[in-house]
Amino acid sequence: MKDKCGVVGVWFDENKNRDAAAIYIYYALQALQHRGQESSGIAVSNGTSILSDKGMGLVTDYFNRDRLQKLAGYAGIGHVRYSTTGGSRAENCQPFMVSYKNGTLAIAHNGNLVNYRELKKELEADGRIFISDSDTEVIAHLLVKQLLKNDLETAVRETMKKLVGSYSLVILVDGKVIGVRDPLGFKPLCIGHIDNGYVLASESAAIDTLNGELIRDVAPGEMVILNDRIESYRLCRAKNHAHCMFEFVYFARPDSILDGRLVYNVRHRIGEVLAEECPTKADIVSPVPDSGITSAIGYSNASSVNYSECLIKNRYVGRTFIMPSQELRETAVRLKLNTVRSNIEGKSIILIDDSIVRGTTSRRIIDLIRRGGAKEVHARIGSPPIISPCYLGIDMATREELIAAYKSVKGVEFMIGADSLYYISLDGLVKAIGINKEDLCTGCLTGVYPVEIPGEACEDKQTRLTNFINE
Amino acid sequence: MKDKCGVVGVWFDENKNRDAAAIYIYYALQALQHRGQESSGIAVSNGTSILSDKGMGLVTDYFNRDRLQKLAGYAGIGHVRYSTTGGSRAENCQPFMVSYKNGTLAIAHNGNLVNYRELKKELEADGRIFISDSDTEVIAHLLVKQLLKNDLETAVRETMKKLVGSYSLVILVDGKVIGVRDPLGFKPLCIGHIDNGYVLASESAAIDTLNGELIRDVAPGEMVILNDRIESYRLCRAKNHAHCMFEFVYFARPDSILDGRLVYNVRHRIGEVLAEECPTKADIVSPVPDSGITSAIGYSNASSVNYSECLIKNRYVGRTFIMPSQELRETAVRLKLNTVRSNIEGKSIILIDDSIVRGTTSRRIIDLIRRGGAKEVHARIGSPPIISPCYLGIDMATREELIAAYKSVKGVEFMIGADSLYYISLDGLVKAIGINKEDLCTGCLTGVYPVEIPGEACEDKQTRLTNFINE
Amino acid sequence: MKDKCGVVGVWFDENKNRDAAAIYIYYALQALQHRGQESSGIAVSNGTSILSDKGMGLVTDYFNRDRLQKLAGYAGIGHVRYSTTGGSRAENCQPFMVSYKNGTLAIAHNGNLVNYRELKKELEADGRIFISDSDTEVIAHLLVKQLLKNDLETAVRETMKKLVGSYSLVILVDGKVIGVRDPLGFKPLCIGHIDNGYVLASESAAIDTLNGELIRDVAPGEMVILNDRIESYRLCRAKNHAHCMFEFVYFARPDSILDGRLVYNVRHRIGEVLAEECPTKADIVSPVPDSGITSAIGYSNASSVNYSECLIKNRYVGRTFIMPSQELRETAVRLKLNTVRSNIEGKSIILIDDSIVRGTTSRRIIDLIRRGGAKEVHARIGSPPIISPCYLGIDMATREELIAAYKSVKGVEFMIGADSLYYISLDGLVKAIGINKEDLCTGCLTGVYPVEIPGEACEDKQTRLTNFINE
Amino acid sequence: MKDKCGVVGVWFDENKNRDAAAIYIYYALQALQHRGQESSGIAVSNGTSILSDKGMGLVTDYFNRDRLQKLAGYAGIGHVRYSTTGGSRAENCQPFMVSYKNGTLAIAHNGNLVNYRELKKELEADGRIFISDSDTEVIAHLLVKQLLKNDLETAVRETMKKLVGSYSLVILVDGKVIGVRDPLGFKPLCIGHIDNGYVLASESAAIDTLNGELIRDVAPGEMVILNDRIESYRLCRAKNHAHCMFEFVYFARPDSILDGRLVYNVRHRIGEVLAEECPTKADIVSPVPDSGITSAIGYSNASSVNYSECLIKNRYVGRTFIMPSQELRETAVRLKLNTVRSNIEGKSIILIDDSIVRGTTSRRIIDLIRRGGAKEVHARIGSPPIISPCYLGIDMATREELIAAYKSVKGVEFMIGADSLYYISLDGLVKAIGINKEDLCTGCLTGVYPVEIPGEACEDKQTRLTNFINE
Repeated sequence: MKDKCGVVGVWFDENKNRDAAAIYIYYALQALQHRGQESSGIAVSNGTSILSDKGMGLVTDYFNRDRLQKLAGYAGIGHVRYSTTGGSRAENCQPFMVSYKNGTLAIAHNGNLVNYRELKKELEADGRIFISDSDTEVIAHLLVKQLLKNDLETAVRETMKKLVGSYSLVILVDGKVIGVRDPLGFKPLCIGHIDNGYVLASESAAIDTLNGELIRDVAPGEMVILNDRIESYRLCRAKNHAHCMFEFVYFARPDSILDGRLVYNVRHRIGEVLAEECPTKADIVSPVPDSGITSAIGYSNASSVNYSECLIKNRYVGRTFIMPSQELRETAVRLKLNTVRSNIEGKSIILIDDSIVRGTTSRRIIDLIRRGGAKEVHARIGSPPIISPCYLGIDMATREELIAAYKSVKGVEFMIGADSLYYISLDGLVKAIGINKEDLCTGCLTGVYPVEIPGEACEDKQTRLTNFINE
Repeated sequence: MKDKCGVVGVWFDENKNRDAAAIYIYYALQALQHRGQESSGIAVSNGTSILSDKGMGLVTDYFNRDRLQKLAGYAGIGHVRYSTTGGSRAENCQPFMVSYKNGTLAIAHNGNLVNYRELKKELEADGRIFISDSDTEVIAHLLVKQLLKNDLETAVRETMKKLVGSYSLVILVDGKVIGVRDPLGFKPLCIGHIDNGYVLASESAAIDTLNGELIRDVAPGEMVILNDRIESYRLCRAKNHAHCMFEFVYFARPDSILDGRLVYNVRHRIGEVLAEECPTKADIVSPVPDSGITSAIGYSNASSVNYSECLIKNRYVGRTFIMPSQELRETAVRLKLNTVRSNIEGKSIILIDDSIVRGTTSRRIIDLIRRGGAKEVHARIGSPPIISPCYLGIDMATREELIAAYKSVKGVEFMIGADSLYYISLDGLVKAIGINKEDLCTGCLTGVYPVEIPGEACEDKQTRLTNFINE
Repeated sequence: MKDKCGVVGVWFDENKNRDAAAIYIYYALQALQHRGQESSGIAVSNGTSILSDKGMGLVTDYFNRDRLQKLAGYAGIGHVRYSTTGGSRAENCQPFMVSYKNGTLAIAHNGNLVNYRELKKELEADGRIFISDSDTEVIAHLLVKQLLKNDLETAVRETMKKLVGSYSLVILVDGKVIGVRDPLGFKPLCIGHIDNGYVLASESAAIDTLNGELIRDVAPGEMVILNDRIESYRLCRAKNHAHCMFEFVYFARPDSILDGRLVYNVRHRIGEVLAEECPTKADIVSPVPDSGITSAIGYSNASSVNYSECLIKNRYVGRTFIMPSQELRETAVRLKLNTVRSNIEGKSIILIDDSIVRGTTSRRIIDLIRRGGAKEVHARIGSPPIISPCYLGIDMATREELIAAYKSVKGVEFMIGADSLYYISLDGLVKAIGINKEDLCTGCLTGVYPVEIPGEACEDKQTRLTNFINE
Repeated sequence: MKDKCGVVGVWFDENKNRDAAAIYIYYALQALQHRGQESSGIAVSNGTSILSDKGMGLVTDYFNRDRLQKLAGYAGIGHVRYSTTGGSRAENCQPFMVSYKNGTLAIAHNGNLVNYRELKKELEADGRIFISDSDTEVIAHLLVKQLLKNDLETAVRETMKKLVGSYSLVILVDGKVIGVRDPLGFKPLCIGHIDNGYVLASESAAIDTLNGELIRDVAPGEMVILNDRIESYRLCRAKNHAHCMFEFVYFARPDSILDGRLVYNVRHRIGEVLAEECPTKADIVSPVPDSGITSAIGYSNASSVNYSECLIKNRYVGRTFIMPSQELRETAVRLKLNTVRSNIEGKSIILIDDSIVRGTTSRRIIDLIRRGGAKEVHARIGSPPIISPCYLGIDMATREELIAAYKSVKGVEFMIGADSLYYISLDGLVKAIGINKEDLCTGCLTGVYPVEIPGEACEDKQTRLTNFINE
C-alpha cells in the first residue's frame, strides 16, 4: 500500500529571503519522503522566471549543493512521488511545468482524478495533445484554459467544477504560491508560518521540520495564496467531506496533525478501541513494526497486557536481489523482520497490525512467530476489512487481490494462520479518528464511494451536495 | 559550429522482422552521431503501441542491450540531438512523444522553424500549453490539429503551410514511418533500401552502415511513407530550393551523398578551386584536421604543392577542466592539436580550413604553427566569409561574434596572424558543390535569407514562389 | 559512535550446493548492515581459485544479480565495513585478498589491533611493504609468514601470539572457511547450521536470516574450520575475557544472541535496573529512538510509568546538504526527529537513551522536547559515563570530545539541559548483561583496559593471564 | 594491438609552484591517452606526504575539478593504463602506492617484466604477499628491499639487476620524482623543461602539450632525478639497445620524438620505402585510417600515385552492442569505416596499413572496398610479418592468432583477399626508423628476442652484453 505523493509550497518576503525557497523546500520534502520515494522535484520563482529541477530518486540522492544553489528564488513548490503506473518515466516527475500564453506555471499534485479519462478525452476531442500520462497534465490544460479568460480566483473555481476526485495542489504562477484542496478534502494540506514567510505542506510534520508553526489546514474547497498574509478563497463547499481514513491509520507520520487530529493520538486510540471491542487474554501485546507500534502501546495501556517486541525490523534492507527458488519469499520476509525469541517462546501474543491487504505478508509474519515458539497468535487489525479498491490516490491493490473482498473474517483468519482475528469496527475506527463518519472516505471499507466511480456504488457527496458559493 | 540533429526512420515487413527496428536505428544513429552528441532517442511501434526510450548521452553510452531489447517493434524512428538552448533538459530529448485523440505519435526533427514564436503564440492564444521549449512541440500541436479533421496527406500538407523554416522530419504514427522535408530542402533527408524494409536518414552514410542501398533523397516538399513500397506525396513545391551549403562544407560526413553530390568530392573540389582562384607558392599544403583534410588533398592534387600534415589531432580529449589562469585557452588548443615540427620548421605553408567563425581558434592554430618555426602561413578557407547568423538549424554564433561581420578580409588576416588569407569565392563554392546558386541557402554568407526573418534581408523563396500542388 | 565491521563465512557441501555461497553471504551481510554501511565485499572459493568482488556502498547497492552470479563457489566469506580512518579508500574494502607462495587467501576482520603500529614497524623493518592502511594487512603478513613454515593450526596460533587487540576473523584459504576469535573475545562471532552447510557470522541474527540455527559462539581464543562438521581448535586461553559491553548496549541487533545473552533481554533489563536504581516520578517514560526503545519498555514494565513516544524518527533521511548558517545543526536534528506534542505538553518525562558521547545530540533532543512544552525532562542513560576512548574497534570519539571525560554527572546534566540525569551504575549494567564484570571490556567506562595501550591504565588480561595451550 | 601504459612525472620548484603538479600531470596524461584508456591515476607530494587518486576511466572522465584540487603538491607522477589481464580490477590502477619503513612511495610503470613469475616466486618463498597481480608490485618489493640497506642510487641499480624485460618507470619518493629506463630501452621515456620545473613523459608530445621543451630521452639504463637541475645516474649499460619498433610503426603519436626520431618522419619514410621496394601501378594510394595515413602520404610523394581517401572513419563510435547474428562482425566494421565510393569505383588501389595481426580486420576492409567497386586492391604493409608474440609490453595476440605465424605471404594475401600483398622488408623498416637493427627489438618479427623468454629463441642483449658501470 503506497501513497502517491507529497507536496510543499514555500513563500518568503522577497526583500528578506530572496534565494532561500529551494533549501526550505528541500528540507520539507525530506520530512514528506515517506509519501513518495521514486522522484523528487523543486520549482522556484525569482519574480521573473521559474527555475526547476526534478529527477528520479530520493530527495537527498537527487538534490545536492550544486542543484540547490542553481534554484535561486523567494517562492517555490516541491513534490515527492511514488509512481503507480507501470512506467516510472522521467516525464512523470513533478512539479509539472507548462508554458502558456501568460508565462509559465508549475503544479504539484497529491491525489487522483477519477474522471481523468473523460476529461482527457474531452480535451483530446478539442485537438489537445498530451506529453505525460499523469492526471496533473489534465489539470494544467483545464487551468490554463480558464486563466486565459478569467482572473485567478474564477479560473481555479471553474477548473474545480470539472475535477472529480482527490487533489491537494500547490501551484506556482505569477510569482505566487497557491494551495488548493478538493471540496471533499480527501488528501491533507496544511498551512504554516515560518520566519519571513509561509509554507504549505501535505503534513504538518514538514512545517515542524522548518521550525515553523502550524496555522491550520487548508479547508476542503478552499484556495489559499501565500503572501505577506494568507489570502483565502472559499471556492466551493460540500455539505460533507471525505477525508481519507488511511492517512490516519497508515500513511501519515504519527507526529503530523491532519484536519485537527494528531495522528499519534488516533493510532493510540485505535489500540484502546481494539482492547475494548475485543478483550483478549494474552501474555503480551506486540506490534508489527513500524506501523503497528503506536496502536500496540495504546492497546497495552487500555488493557493489562504488557507491551513487548516480538519482531525486529532491519532498517537497512534495500532492493534485494532474491534468488528465484522456493525459499524466495521466505527470505524476503526474514531479511526485513526477525523474531525476538525470548518474547515469543511459549507465549500467547496479541499482534497488532494496521491493516490486511493481500494477507500474504500477515501469513508469513504469523508463520515466523509460530516458528519462534508462540503458543497463540491473536491478530488485531487497526482498520476494518478492506473489501474494495481505492480510486482516490492510494496504490492499494485490485479487488481480486484484496483478501477480504471475497472472504469472511473467519476465512481470512484461516488464511493468515492466526488463532483469532479481529478487525476494529468501522464505528470504533471513526471514534478513534474523532471525525464524523459522514466526513470520512470509507470507500475501500464499505464499497460505497463519495464520488461517482464507474461500476462502484456511490453516495455522491460531490455532485449532489456541493454548493458552490457565489453562484 | 554545431548542427542540431540527425534523424532516422526504419520500417520492416512486420512478418519478416517483427522486432528488429530498434537495433537498426541504434546502428544508424551511431553513423549520425556527428550531427548531435547530447541526447539519443528511439521510438518503435509494434503495431498496437509505441515504445520509446531516450536520454542524455551518446547513442552507445545511453543505449545498452537491456534498453534495446525492451524496444521490440517492426518500425520506428530515432534521433540524436545537440541542444542549442541553454538548458540541455531531459524534456527536450527526442523523439517527441504525444498522445492525442487517435492514439500516440512520435516526431523526430532536424531543422529550425523561424516562425516558431509566432506559431507558439498563436497556439497559446488558443489556450494550448507547452511542456518543452522545442519547436518540435509546435509541429506536434499543428499536426494533431490537422489529423483530427483530415487524412494524413492533407493533414501534413496543411501543417506544412504553417511552417516557415527548415525541417526534415521522421514521424511514427499509426504504425507507419513517415518522412517529410520542407519545401526548400534546407536539411538533408534520404531514403534507402534494406533487406525486408526501408530506411530514412539524414545522411546516406547511415544507410551504408545498415548495408543498405541509397535510393534517392526525399524531395523538398515531399512526404514519403515507408511501406512494402515507398509511397510518395508531393505536397508542395518551391520554384527554387535552399540547401544548406554548410552541410557540404563542414557538417555532413564526407562519405555521404546529399542531394546527389558526394560530400567528399565537393570538398576535394573546394581545394581545387582554392588552388585555381588563388595560386600560391609554398612548400607544403596542410589541413586543419579533420575538416580541412579532403580540401587540402584536393588543393595538392590541383597544384604542385605537396600534401603534408603540420598538425596532429588528439582524438581522446574529452571535456577538460582547464585551470583558470592566463594560459587557459592556450592549453585547451595544445590539448587538441600539436605540431609536427619537421613539417613546419622553415617551411612556407598553405593551411586549409573549412571556415572561420569567431577567428579565435584560427589565431591560436596559426600561432602554434608559427612557434613551430614556420616561415609563412597562408590561410585558405573553404567557405566565403560568414557575415550573418544562421537561423535555419546551425548553432553558429551571434552576429557580434562573427569576425567577418564587421571586418574586411585584410582585417581578419591581421587578426588571425596569417601572412595571407584567402576565402573561396561564393561562385567557386557553388561550382564545387555543383548545385545552382539559386538552390542553395547562403544566408550566412550574404545576409540575404530564403525565408523571412525579422530584421534580416530576404529574397523570399517560400512565400512567393511556393506553389502548392493540388490547389 | 560506529562499529567498524561485520563478517560472515559460509560453507556448503561442495556436492550439494556448488554455487550458492555468494547469495547466502549476500543475505547474511544485509542482516549485518547496521555494523558497517560504507563498503561491502564477498570472496568465494570454487575449490581451485578464489573469486572476489568488493566496493563502496550498501550491500544491496553494490551487489546486483550480475555481480552475484559471477561469484560461483561453494564456500566464501563476506564483509561490511565502516571506515574509521579519514580516507574511505577503495583499497581498504574487505575481504582483504592476498596471493602468496601457496596460493590465495582472503581475510575479513572485525576489530582493531592495538599493537598495529609496532607490528607494522617490525614488518617494515623486515623490508615488507604495505598497500592499504588497515590492520588486516598486518594480520595477512603475519599469517602468511607462519603458513610457509607451519600447518594451519600452528600458523594461526603463532599469529595470534603476536596480535594484541580485538579480532574476529573469517578467513578463506585452501577452499576452507575459518573463523578465529581473539583470546579475550572482544567482538562477537558465532556459528550456525544451515541446510547442507555451516555459517559464521558476527551476530546470530544473520544466521536467522538464512533460516539457520545458532549452534554456539566461537569461543575466545578458538579457531573453527567449517567442514562437514565444525572442527574446533582451542589455540589459546585467557583466564578472563573482555567482551565489549557496547555490543549489548548499542551496536548489536536486539534480536541477536551474543555470548549466550539475547540482546533484547539485556536492554530490557537495563531499563528495569534504571527504574530500580533511581526511582523517579513522571507522567511517561519515552525512548530516544531507536536505540533507547527496548530499555524504555523495560523501564515502564519495572515501574508504574506509562510507556509513550515523545519523538518520531524520520526513517528516510539520507546525507542531507545543510545550508551553512546558524540554524545549521538545529535543522539537522529536526530532519531526523520530531516531537509528538500531545505526549509532551505539560508532561514530566523520563527520557531513556543508550549512552551520551559528546552530549551535543542529547542537548538538542532535550531542547526539542522542552520546546514541545515538557514540564520536566529526566534523562536516564543505559550505560555509565564514557570517560575514555575505545581502542578496540569502535569509532567513538577522542578523549577531548567525550563530555564525561572532564565533567561530573552534575556538569553533564547542566550541559544537556536535563532536569535530572542518571547513568546506570557499572554494577547495574553488569547485572543487566549477565556476564561477570571480569569478563567484560569496560575500558571506555573505567579508563582501565584489558590490554596494554600506550598512555592508558591497564589490568592486562592478555599478556599476564593468557595461558597458551600446548605450551 | 594495444600498448599497456603511459607515464608522466612533473617536478616544480616548491617555492614557485606549490600546488600545480596535479593539473600539469592531468594535461600530460590526456596527451598520452592513446597509450591506455582503461584507468587513470595521479599521485603528488606536498613535501611531507603523498596524496593520490586513481580509478577506472579516461583521464577527463575520472578526474574533475574536485579531485584535482584535492591533489595539492609541487611534484608528482601519473599513469594511464590499458589492462591486459582479464580482470580490469580497480586494484591494478596505478600509480602503485606502497608504504614501507621510510615512508610512502608511488610507482608508475610502462612495460612488462619477463621474469615476473620467477621474481614473484622468489619473493613469495621469502614469505611476501601480493595484493595486485601486476609486475609493478614486484618492482615495489625489490626496490623497497634495497632502499632499506642502500642509498637511492645503489638501490635502483641493484633492483635493475634483478629485472628482465621492459620498464620505463616514474617514481615518487621522498618528495623526489625519479625516472628509470631499462638498460635495453624498450619503451620510450623522455625529459622536458617547463617553467619552474621539469617533466618526464612516455612521449614528447606530452611535453609539447605543457608548452615545454624536449631536452632529451632518458638513456637506456639511466636514472634521472628531477630537481632544480636534472640529476643523471648511468646505472647500467648494454652494448646494444632494443627499442620497440612498433612504437614508431603504430603506437606513438606521429608528433612525438622518440630516441631522436620524429615518428611522423619514420612513418612517412615507411611509405617511401614501400614505394621503392615494390613499385606498383595504381590509380590511387589510400590509407587505412588513422594509422596508415602518414605512410600513405609518404608513398604518394615517393611515387607518382595520387593520395586519396577510400575509407572514412566514424570518430564517435563507442562500445557498441552488436546483435548476435551472422551479420555481426560486418556491422561492427561498417560502424567504424565507410567507403568513399567515387574514389573506389573502377579504381586500382594501393591500400596502406601499418601491420596485419590476425588478418580478420584486413579481410573485412578489403571486402568493403571491393563491394565499393574497386578494380584492384594492393595491400602494402608498414611492418614485416608478425610471426611471434610480444612479451615486452604490447597486448598483441597469441602465436596461434597471428596469421603470419603459420602462413606464407601468399597465404596471407589469399586470406585477406588482396590482389597483391607486400610487407616492408625488415631492412627497409630499419632504414625508415633510422636506428641500427642491433638497437631495435624485433622479437615479434623474427622470433628472436633480446632477452631470455622461456620457449623462445634469444640473442641475449641483457645478460651477456650488459656491462654494469662501477663494477
